[in-house]
Amino acid sequence: MTDRPGVVVGVDIGGTKVLAGVVGADGRVTSTARRTTPGRRVVTSQVEDALVEAIVESAGDRELVGVGVAAAGFVDSAGERVMFAPHLPWQGEPLRDLLEQRLGCPVLLDNDANCAARAEAHHGAARGASSALMITMGTGIGGAVLLDGRVLRGANGMAGEFGHMQVVPGGRPCECGRSGCWEQYSSGNALVRDARALMVEQPSVLAEMSEGHPDRVTGPMVTTAAEAGDLVARAAFASVGDWLGVGTANLVAALDPEVVVIGGGVSAAGDRLLDPARTALQRTLVGVGHRVVPRLVGAELGPEAGMVGAALLVADRAAQPLR
Amino acid sequence: MTDRPGVVVGVDIGGTKVLAGVVGADGRVTSTARRTTPGRRVVTSQVEDALVEAIVESAGDRELVGVGVAAAGFVDSAGERVMFAPHLPWQGEPLRDLLEQRLGCPVLLDNDANCAARAEAHHGAARGASSALMITMGTGIGGAVLLDGRVLRGANGMAGEFGHMQVVPGGRPCECGRSGCWEQYSSGNALVRDARALMVEQPSVLAEMSEGHPDRVTGPMVTTAAEAGDLVARAAFASVGDWLGVGTANLVAALDPEVVVIGGGVSAAGDRLLDPARTALQRTLVGVGHRVVPRLVGAELGPEAGMVGAALLVADRAAQPLR
Repeated sequence: MTDRPGVVVGVDIGGTKVLAGVVGADGRVTSTARRTTPGRRVVTSQVEDALVEAIVESAGDRELVGVGVAAAGFVDSAGERVMFAPHLPWQGEPLRDLLEQRLGCPVLLDNDANCAARAEAHHGAARGASSALMITMGTGIGGAVLLDGRVLRGANGMAGEFGHMQVVPGGRPCECGRSGCWEQYSSGNALVRDARALMVEQPSVLAEMSEGHPDRVTGPMVTTAAEAGDLVARAAFASVGDWLGVGTANLVAALDPEVVVIGGGVSAAGDRLLDPARTALQRTLVGVGHRVVPRLVGAELGPEAGMVGAALLVADRAAQPLR
Repeated sequence: MTDRPGVVVGVDIGGTKVLAGVVGADGRVTSTARRTTPGRRVVTSQVEDALVEAIVESAGDRELVGVGVAAAGFVDSAGERVMFAPHLPWQGEPLRDLLEQRLGCPVLLDNDANCAARAEAHHGAARGASSALMITMGTGIGGAVLLDGRVLRGANGMAGEFGHMQVVPGGRPCECGRSGCWEQYSSGNALVRDARALMVEQPSVLAEMSEGHPDRVTGPMVTTAAEAGDLVARAAFASVGDWLGVGTANLVAALDPEVVVIGGGVSAAGDRLLDPARTALQRTLVGVGHRVVPRLVGAELGPEAGMVGAALLVADRAAQPLR
């Protein structure tokens, strides 16, 4: 035992950077440190070195009480290993044990979507809700189920794979090898594809923004164009938002949560995405006359959500995941 | 206090009968009593009289430690009231308080599908599983989400309404007022409709069984015909089973349970229903190469499941529902 003040550090490991920060009991991040991640083609120890450096720097001369790690990858249900990460060299890496040995303090591990959801439950848009769904709209759709502030991890650690629920039999082909998956109709990729398809049929400021090359259109371009009043961009948001509501209605029928939180890059569009989703949820959800329809709201925490949710794994036993 | 032995009674209230029984800690039902329910067009006190009589009779001269009630209707999330029951006169009836006053012991209340699921979790097909889905195939599809043996009730008490998840946009119209609901493709009603549609196109023993009137075909007829090798009946089971697997894959993507239990009348067909469902689950579920696909099994408990699950509400704090 020492008499140094103790701190809990949350770390977020993405494909390009490691972000570590001291997280207080109120969810505030008081000091951060950053390292770049060396990519997939390096030995795993280089990633672990970057992690340890960022953690130690953020703690400074304070004692590490515990470390929570949010990893952009597939974490096993026991929270011990990163089984696979699209942008990192890990395959079944026993990250939890490795870091505990190097840091000499308890380390807890979960995937980044679960951590962001946990942060929203404790300090963000799902605060105070007994149950919530988090739907993360980035390139695809990710998500998490929150019950009493705890994330449902699932038997394989794979709960929350909402993006690959089939919404159209025989529908659009999906990168996962099947077809008709929800994220083919409602995601950043779907938004861009819808806009590209529409801009060849009707005039759009996107033609100018992409210099006449529809394949150069990006999600942020569509958001900007929609804000400027472009009808093609707005139609793309209307479609993606409508499908967001349809898929949400299915999850709400199954789980009856108090609130649905929409996060991820696409959610930056706010009500342009959420309003059509609310309309579709109301139209598609069973028993609308006999129930309180859950609030559909944007996420409140920004890029710090992963760090905050990771630290909660250490700070709050009640935040431990459900299998 | 008395020195009489104490018992927990579970009660199942359906549209035609009340079934009460003493339920032991091992889930065994050791004495039962039955009353007919007087239907929708009576005053509510008559139903309560029938309930109390059956409970008191089943307990005999033993002391009532507590009573659990499984009601075929919509129970509020607090477990206090029957908001609506299709075959009973209750509308917002504060059944829990009424029975506690008349019986002088704690009474707990949940809907019958949740109770059956709880019974399967503790003493049946989901025994020992950290998480499970129960899918009940009767006229439509009902169900429940089980986590650590606890049923997820939801913010409105409406979790588990799997039957009204949309699986086909603009699909078959549903009694709920929307279209493309799962139970329009996989349920007892769907089985009969599929068989009726096929038997006008090709020879089938069902023509004889229904005396040439397709509208007289019933679910049990289709089951019997399938057992006898009838190709129409078997094709109907193949379709309903396939859709069972497709919808199950969506739920498994979201929740990643350890086991999926199929109950309800249609599940009496066993592997004739479950085999095509297993094939479709394998085909439709995301990440099949990277996960343990949950077992898809038939329910083990029969008509006593409601009583047993209701008694568990009293007997086991861990069985209390999640909101």
